[in-house]
Amino acid sequence: MPCKCELRRKIKSAAVPWIPERTVYLDYNATTPVDPRVIGAFERACRKTWGNPSSLHSAGTAGWNELEILYDSASSFFGTDAEGFHLCSSGTDALSAAIYGTAGREKDITFITSAAEHQAVRHPLFHLARRSPAAPSGFCGGVVSLPVDEDGKIDLQKLKDALRGRKKTAVVISPVNHETGAQQPIREIAETARSAGAIVILDAVQAAARLSPEEWAPYCDIFCISGHKLYAPKGTALLWRSPGIRLRPLRFGGAQEGGLFPGTENTAGGAALSEALKLMKSEQKDELRMLKTLQRDGLNILEKAGICFTIESPEDSVAGILCISLKPQVAMQDLIFSLNSLNICISRFSACSDRIDGRSRILDAMGRPALRSANSIRISCGRWSRRDDFHKLAAALKKCGC
Amino acid sequence: MPCKCELRRKIKSAAVPWIPERTVYLDYNATTPVDPRVIGAFERACRKTWGNPSSLHSAGTAGWNELEILYDSASSFFGTDAEGFHLCSSGTDALSAAIYGTAGREKDITFITSAAEHQAVRHPLFHLARRSPAAPSGFCGGVVSLPVDEDGKIDLQKLKDALRGRKKTAVVISPVNHETGAQQPIREIAETARSAGAIVILDAVQAAARLSPEEWAPYCDIFCISGHKLYAPKGTALLWRSPGIRLRPLRFGGAQEGGLFPGTENTAGGAALSEALKLMKSEQKDELRMLKTLQRDGLNILEKAGICFTIESPEDSVAGILCISLKPQVAMQDLIFSLNSLNICISRFSACSDRIDGRSRILDAMGRPALRSANSIRISCGRWSRRDDFHKLAAALKKCGC
Repeated sequence: MPCKCELRRKIKSAAVPWIPERTVYLDYNATTPVDPRVIGAFERACRKTWGNPSSLHSAGTAGWNELEILYDSASSFFGTDAEGFHLCSSGTDALSAAIYGTAGREKDITFITSAAEHQAVRHPLFHLARRSPAAPSGFCGGVVSLPVDEDGKIDLQKLKDALRGRKKTAVVISPVNHETGAQQPIREIAETARSAGAIVILDAVQAAARLSPEEWAPYCDIFCISGHKLYAPKGTALLWRSPGIRLRPLRFGGAQEGGLFPGTENTAGGAALSEALKLMKSEQKDELRMLKTLQRDGLNILEKAGICFTIESPEDSVAGILCISLKPQVAMQDLIFSLNSLNICISRFSACSDRIDGRSRILDAMGRPALRSANSIRISCGRWSRRDDFHKLAAALKKCGC
Repeated sequence: MPCKCELRRKIKSAAVPWIPERTVYLDYNATTPVDPRVIGAFERACRKTWGNPSSLHSAGTAGWNELEILYDSASSFFGTDAEGFHLCSSGTDALSAAIYGTAGREKDITFITSAAEHQAVRHPLFHLARRSPAAPSGFCGGVVSLPVDEDGKIDLQKLKDALRGRKKTAVVISPVNHETGAQQPIREIAETARSAGAIVILDAVQAAARLSPEEWAPYCDIFCISGHKLYAPKGTALLWRSPGIRLRPLRFGGAQEGGLFPGTENTAGGAALSEALKLMKSEQKDELRMLKTLQRDGLNILEKAGICFTIESPEDSVAGILCISLKPQVAMQDLIFSLNSLNICISRFSACSDRIDGRSRILDAMGRPALRSANSIRISCGRWSRRDDFHKLAAALKKCGC
């Protein structure tokens, strides 16, 4: 349905021409461009293997094979078994299936999360906590939101305390923060959670592109990733669950994807995601190295250009996500819009946020002073980011009075 | 997740090569091939307008525009306002949002449906009726399943009786049956329902391709359609609701699509669906005429070839869906598999069904004798179907002893 919000109207009326080749795109965390090699896979599937994977004939088998190839690519990239994968439509879709599915199975489970999670985690959790009428009936658990420290990490002792005395618990957390790139100590969190009998659900939507999977995938019972953060088209995502984990479906109507996501599978999207995961497997190491160098160089470029800022991302945050707060007090909405008119696409919060102005919920949670939290921007880079993007960003920021 | 069912194993082990150009595809109701012109639209969107539609910059606006173009194309084809459309991932996804969304709003609503609906309608309804723990808590309505007559139609008097004495009611029905092509008297059903204050939810997944929208779209409060039955890629669907209708979201995590389908929108899929709807608008009339002629010719071809069968589709069923029962008593699973090995892709029930053998639930509901119901096949044609397909089907059926 069409959006009628004021911000949308404003950005549309600015009518900045969208010419991808001339635009500096520094919002890879919101979405990545689709890799041309991935588009090819989608097109091939549409032309050749368009059968309904549930159909019991050769056209259907061709469609079904696309799904099996996807599960194998995912298994090979993430280092998990292929059996546990379920294709769905978005990271949010996957996370809802994980969270409501767990709540539906274990009526008195307590969810433990961090204060710095994406709204795709926090909204379903707090919706459950409020026990709104659409929550699985009978759910009587609760939600504990753990604070994060100045590095965006939860405290393991506080996690232990939260786990103690509760019979059934699930920890829902993201290895990499979407706004700052802050890392959680996933291995230690998983050890602590598992020794208390808790299950671990990872929102790996950002982590999948930013960390080698061996750093987080072995340390969970369920994880969710999204294709459009990995150079695949939108409308593709995966939920993985370990063999012992059962989830109650949120909706009914077909047996597809183990009944968790009923409805004909997006096979061509799956073929595209499969190709994207193969590319990640072969290129991620080099890409992460490139992003690390780029981030260091980018910071130098901004500093040399005389931009006054504080780095808000913790020191051990992942390469490619850089949160800074600008020192001059500028109106952030005007700044983002002005940068846009100078062909710089950049954001402050997750794209799902409906505001530009105001303080960052994540930086507030990390205890940053109000002025810094209100003046933050998120620079997120990816496969096609270059040093020149930072030169152009620096020049544009200067033009905007920063 | 990989499927391990016996039927899947069997059809895979038969290893019939899938060469679309050499295969007779008579299963358009399961899914349609993707129109090459539609693939072009998807590719263009992946290359040019890949921004996250929620992002407030020019890349995001470009993505957003794809959605607005889709809503406009949909509005133009279906003849409804553009405001009411919501992009989602499958017809089943849309129907669940409609059914659970209605149940979440009106706790004591009674759903009235027909005995011949697709499982994407019946499963969520009966799941609600059983008041399983995943149903919206507090839901205390029920489900009435009306019988259908030998033409697959519900009885308007029985509908009136079911509506009488109930305060809140919703009628959930499909204008065109997925297995027989039988039509419901949608206009009369809507009049009856509305005069009793009931809302009307249409499963138009098959109807959208088989009937001009003016025959059904004006007669409902909510309808659901699926892209992959309209020559668009899988992973695309629309829910439309009239302005007064509010639905409670089934999942949370973002404000996308009015909060009903949170998660980044499948913009390239939307661009493809938009193109598919434009093609339907300009070509549907000719296509329906072609299918009508083809069906008449096809029946003649089967008869002249000496195939013994009874037409199970009612006389006024839509063109392109033909349900027949074969007179010789053959093992249906063997027949479907043998036809497949002769490069004929055909089915008996909806692809979501997990069986081939046995009686047809739909024909049973229409009161057909057991032997006919157990011997039915569904021939569903579409854009690229030709008379030659029926010649090949007839020859293959003869070879199989029919």
